[in-house]
Amino acid sequence: MDWTTLYADRMARIGDSAIIALLKLAERPDVISFAGGLPDPKSFPILRMKEVVDWVLDHEGAAALQYGPTAGYSKLREWIADRMGRLEQTPVTADGVIVTSSGVEALDLIAKVLLNPGDTVIVEAPTYLAALHVFRSYQAELVDVPIDADGMIIDALEERLADLTRRGIRPKLLYTIPTFQNPAGVTLAADRRRRLVEVADRAGVPVIEDPAYGELRYEGDRLPSLVSLNPEGVLFANTFSKIFGPGVRLGWITAPPGVIAQLCQAKQGTDQCSSTLGQRVVYEYGRRGLIERQVAASLPLYREKRDLTLAAMARYFPSGVTWTRPAGGFYSWVTLPDGVETGPMLEWAIAHEHVAYVSGPPFYADGRGANQLRLCFSFVAPDKIEEGIRRLGRVIEQHIELRHHRRRRE
Amino acid sequence: MDWTTLYADRMARIGDSAIIALLKLAERPDVISFAGGLPDPKSFPILRMKEVVDWVLDHEGAAALQYGPTAGYSKLREWIADRMGRLEQTPVTADGVIVTSSGVEALDLIAKVLLNPGDTVIVEAPTYLAALHVFRSYQAELVDVPIDADGMIIDALEERLADLTRRGIRPKLLYTIPTFQNPAGVTLAADRRRRLVEVADRAGVPVIEDPAYGELRYEGDRLPSLVSLNPEGVLFANTFSKIFGPGVRLGWITAPPGVIAQLCQAKQGTDQCSSTLGQRVVYEYGRRGLIERQVAASLPLYREKRDLTLAAMARYFPSGVTWTRPAGGFYSWVTLPDGVETGPMLEWAIAHEHVAYVSGPPFYADGRGANQLRLCFSFVAPDKIEEGIRRLGRVIEQHIELRHHRRRRE
Repeated sequence: MDWTTLYADRMARIGDSAIIALLKLAERPDVISFAGGLPDPKSFPILRMKEVVDWVLDHEGAAALQYGPTAGYSKLREWIADRMGRLEQTPVTADGVIVTSSGVEALDLIAKVLLNPGDTVIVEAPTYLAALHVFRSYQAELVDVPIDADGMIIDALEERLADLTRRGIRPKLLYTIPTFQNPAGVTLAADRRRRLVEVADRAGVPVIEDPAYGELRYEGDRLPSLVSLNPEGVLFANTFSKIFGPGVRLGWITAPPGVIAQLCQAKQGTDQCSSTLGQRVVYEYGRRGLIERQVAASLPLYREKRDLTLAAMARYFPSGVTWTRPAGGFYSWVTLPDGVETGPMLEWAIAHEHVAYVSGPPFYADGRGANQLRLCFSFVAPDKIEEGIRRLGRVIEQHIELRHHRRRRE
Repeated sequence: MDWTTLYADRMARIGDSAIIALLKLAERPDVISFAGGLPDPKSFPILRMKEVVDWVLDHEGAAALQYGPTAGYSKLREWIADRMGRLEQTPVTADGVIVTSSGVEALDLIAKVLLNPGDTVIVEAPTYLAALHVFRSYQAELVDVPIDADGMIIDALEERLADLTRRGIRPKLLYTIPTFQNPAGVTLAADRRRRLVEVADRAGVPVIEDPAYGELRYEGDRLPSLVSLNPEGVLFANTFSKIFGPGVRLGWITAPPGVIAQLCQAKQGTDQCSSTLGQRVVYEYGRRGLIERQVAASLPLYREKRDLTLAAMARYFPSGVTWTRPAGGFYSWVTLPDGVETGPMLEWAIAHEHVAYVSGPPFYADGRGANQLRLCFSFVAPDKIEEGIRRLGRVIEQHIELRHHRRRRE
């Protein structure tokens, strides 16, 4: 069987596994890795989780091992709706919630419901690379909007929309990570939040709000969620990975109930229902107040790592290098002088200095960002951060030097 | 936001939620339901599972709550490969296995990797309705092949293929449930297994073998799996739902390693990895021999239910009604006299006799089967089976009568 003649057209758009290979390299125990966006396992209160799992198996084991409703375990949907009312200041009812098997499945379901091949999706530049992967797998055309230290630049968004309108194109989706953005670490300013939902609504473009890191705020005040500003036009696609643990693979979407019904139809063809056991465990854990406790306990952990990372960058990164200062989340986005390419530099960094990161291009719809890189500080042990950044500073310095030599020769 | 103008074309093909509504009705506690294909919760050894979950959280809790590799937990992949070598008599290595979030996700990933809109998929008539849903969601053209008491009729398959070849069409997939078929309960005979893989291979058509119920054999000898007859051309897409429990949402695919790499790419855009916690629990549970023990213990449970169902049908179903006699699995497929429509009859059955089943048409690509229905005997308590079938017999009798009256009037 010659399989290569059989693959669907979409596979040509998502076929690049270079990142996977590099992430594997970065897993070598001697490498200090700022690459993968992993939560700190110290944030998992395993003993308390075990108590809850045992309770669920003792009291409702048969139901927890059986199939469940496609939209999710009803008590978990109610709990999510209640909690969103409190945290996001937006009224949500259980019929406006679908439980998904991770935040990525949330994006996949939304794309399945809305995207025909050739449809246009607006994304940030840079943005979450798994989201790019999802939209590409539906053969969407990607249009990106630049961001600065205050998040998406709304003037640029308006220009893009005007340009698309001139060409007769109404985008199907606008995808944004407004708070502690992945990879850039920046947060959309309050006035821009209002403008973003207004502009999108006027253009008839649904917004996906990805708040994955939103609860991990280390300083400053919470800003209004986009969904609270326009519940009818914003799909809020969240994950339990950062407030419980990725291993349970659960997330959720809030949307108008008519859209939830379509998402359920789509989910009948992905996994029919998310883990019943996982849903009952997360519900019972949340009901006992343990998610709030876990989030609260994780904040000082991550804040310390952020502070160590920022201090080390200030100390060890050569001049000409800039980086973002995140008020929460996992990431700082680093920009090197023009002409220093973080892609080739990474192989060298892993081989010679045993330090890793993710280079910039995969975070852009068009693969630019050659002189940028993402640093994830959440997973590195605090006592390794300074040493890791010191090594990376050395790598950057050498590569700036190399560029000088190259330019002189040219 | 007018969402109805935004949905993707594929949604028009998978929009029918009539079955979901009926399954909900069938859940009323006073209804004896032969509808949903659920395992018997008595087959879940919850105490032993709890021991294993506790062991995993005690010994590898941090890893079990973290992200895992997209292809699956390496020890589970090895265990699956080893076990398939023994059970299916086919050499599989870990790099030929991807762990999926249920059997349906296995089908979804295969479809994502292989199907462009308009591609042709060959299915059995009747077949598993979630598989139809998956293929429709990729806008495939469905071509069906009839089955009889010995499974897919290979002469008919050859005719279909010849017809497609004449029209210049090479199908992308052939989907079959060779053993204890859902919904028909029949099993593909040994000689037909050999012919099926030969015919498909000659036509260059990959086969999906769905063995979901294959381990639940109540009599007779195991037949060779299709994958053992042609490992290069058969994708074996299985589930842990019937040998562990659906609540964990895990399954797997075996395929040539090049295809596994493509499936991993596709999974990066569905859920990135299946539940790490679930995978480690299932691995440890399997390693201790508990899956084999669970399957062995479930056989007498299900065999008794099958026997009670068959005996009751023989006693209470009026003449003119035929049904299949499954040697394993969960289902018998019932055919009523022409003109008796099981769709409208179901509403009456639930309302007046408090008994439920699934009517025939959703199991066919073209919606025929109006006089057929699926009986699932796995979930009904043994002491309710005879009463349930007695009620259903009464419903059928009345509807045969009704048809006589209607015909006399015409």
